[in-house]
Amino acid sequence: MKPRVLEVRTNILKQNDQVAREMRDRFARQGVLVCNLVSSPGAGKTELLAKTLAELRRRHSVAAIVGDLATDCDAKRLAASGAPAQQIETNGLCHLEADMVARVLDAWQLPPLDFLFIENVGNLVCPTSWDLGEDLRVLLISVTEGEDKPLKYPTLINTADLVLMTKMDLAEAVEFDRAALAANIQAVRPGVDVQDVSARTGEGFAAWIELLETHLRAKRQR
Amino acid sequence: MKPRVLEVRTNILKQNDQVAREMRDRFARQGVLVCNLVSSPGAGKTELLAKTLAELRRRHSVAAIVGDLATDCDAKRLAASGAPAQQIETNGLCHLEADMVARVLDAWQLPPLDFLFIENVGNLVCPTSWDLGEDLRVLLISVTEGEDKPLKYPTLINTADLVLMTKMDLAEAVEFDRAALAANIQAVRPGVDVQDVSARTGEGFAAWIELLETHLRAKRQR
Repeated sequence: MKPRVLEVRTNILKQNDQVAREMRDRFARQGVLVCNLVSSPGAGKTELLAKTLAELRRRHSVAAIVGDLATDCDAKRLAASGAPAQQIETNGLCHLEADMVARVLDAWQLPPLDFLFIENVGNLVCPTSWDLGEDLRVLLISVTEGEDKPLKYPTLINTADLVLMTKMDLAEAVEFDRAALAANIQAVRPGVDVQDVSARTGEGFAAWIELLETHLRAKRQR
Repeated sequence: MKPRVLEVRTNILKQNDQVAREMRDRFARQGVLVCNLVSSPGAGKTELLAKTLAELRRRHSVAAIVGDLATDCDAKRLAASGAPAQQIETNGLCHLEADMVARVLDAWQLPPLDFLFIENVGNLVCPTSWDLGEDLRVLLISVTEGEDKPLKYPTLINTADLVLMTKMDLAEAVEFDRAALAANIQAVRPGVDVQDVSARTGEGFAAWIELLETHLRAKRQR
């Protein structure tokens, strides 16, 4: 890479980290747990999130921000859960940046939250370097993607706090090899928590919700 | 976006276009048809390509270059078809660039080719602006990804010459709505050719191979 580009890029990343740090401080003061959902396009982020919002809002205050290159389809799908949801259209940009999220939050009249979810642009590479001030970076890998993905796309998974294996209802149809994917995840990100889920059947959802609530309690006790 | 960054990025893209133009001229002189396969991670590029190479090499001279952030898994999978295959490891970069492909070709002792396939990094956004000198940009969308993908990721599909709907064998399991995906593809890229395929069952493969051969003949008659 050309040195001049690298320098400019480094400065932009530093600006992003500054905004992300301010947001992280704000989220800490507010006691809200923030999850940044990342994955390939079509790994099931929106479906998982819609169901997660519907479950959590029975006893928690929740909201979601969703990034896409174009359209507000996803915000509409999420709003159907009854939770407040806002769309960020990135106009072709391949990831969300901290100041995009900050601007939405500044302009949004939200009640005090327990959980804020940020659904990133579907991209298994580029969100890696862009801190959004989140507590948990949650990486989704669907059973249809192939068990080799962690090895071939190591950078993003290497920054993940939690991995969800999604679309477990399709495991049999695609002859999914769970042990192989689990081994490849651990090879790249040793010790990371992994949870199997299916938004369609509800498999693994109780454990996922409990995990979120455990993280919220832990954050508030810090 | 900051003007200074935009300027640097524009210069790099211009350099890429220059190299891509030189490669396109070279490919024209050689009479080789070059396909750039792009998609989300896990849409089935490697599986499709392995089967395509195996079919084509019965009566054509073929080769493949495959890009990944890390590992040479894919080159090994492709080489199993019996066709020459080389890996480009991008070291974290989210797309292939023309000079990466040029360097591989310059160093590679290949016989005269009929078809050269370049399997890009799995990314539904970033390969958009990076011309590799290809004749056909072939976009794969698997039936498991969701019918809304063309609307949400319009930039890459808007540069595609051909769209393959992959993993058709899973259509029923995921309640795939073919008409909806087809309509969304045409909304973003009106008139583009669409072919259904399954590398697992072989569905649509004869038509896909015939399409490639038709494009090769047309190129050589120009």
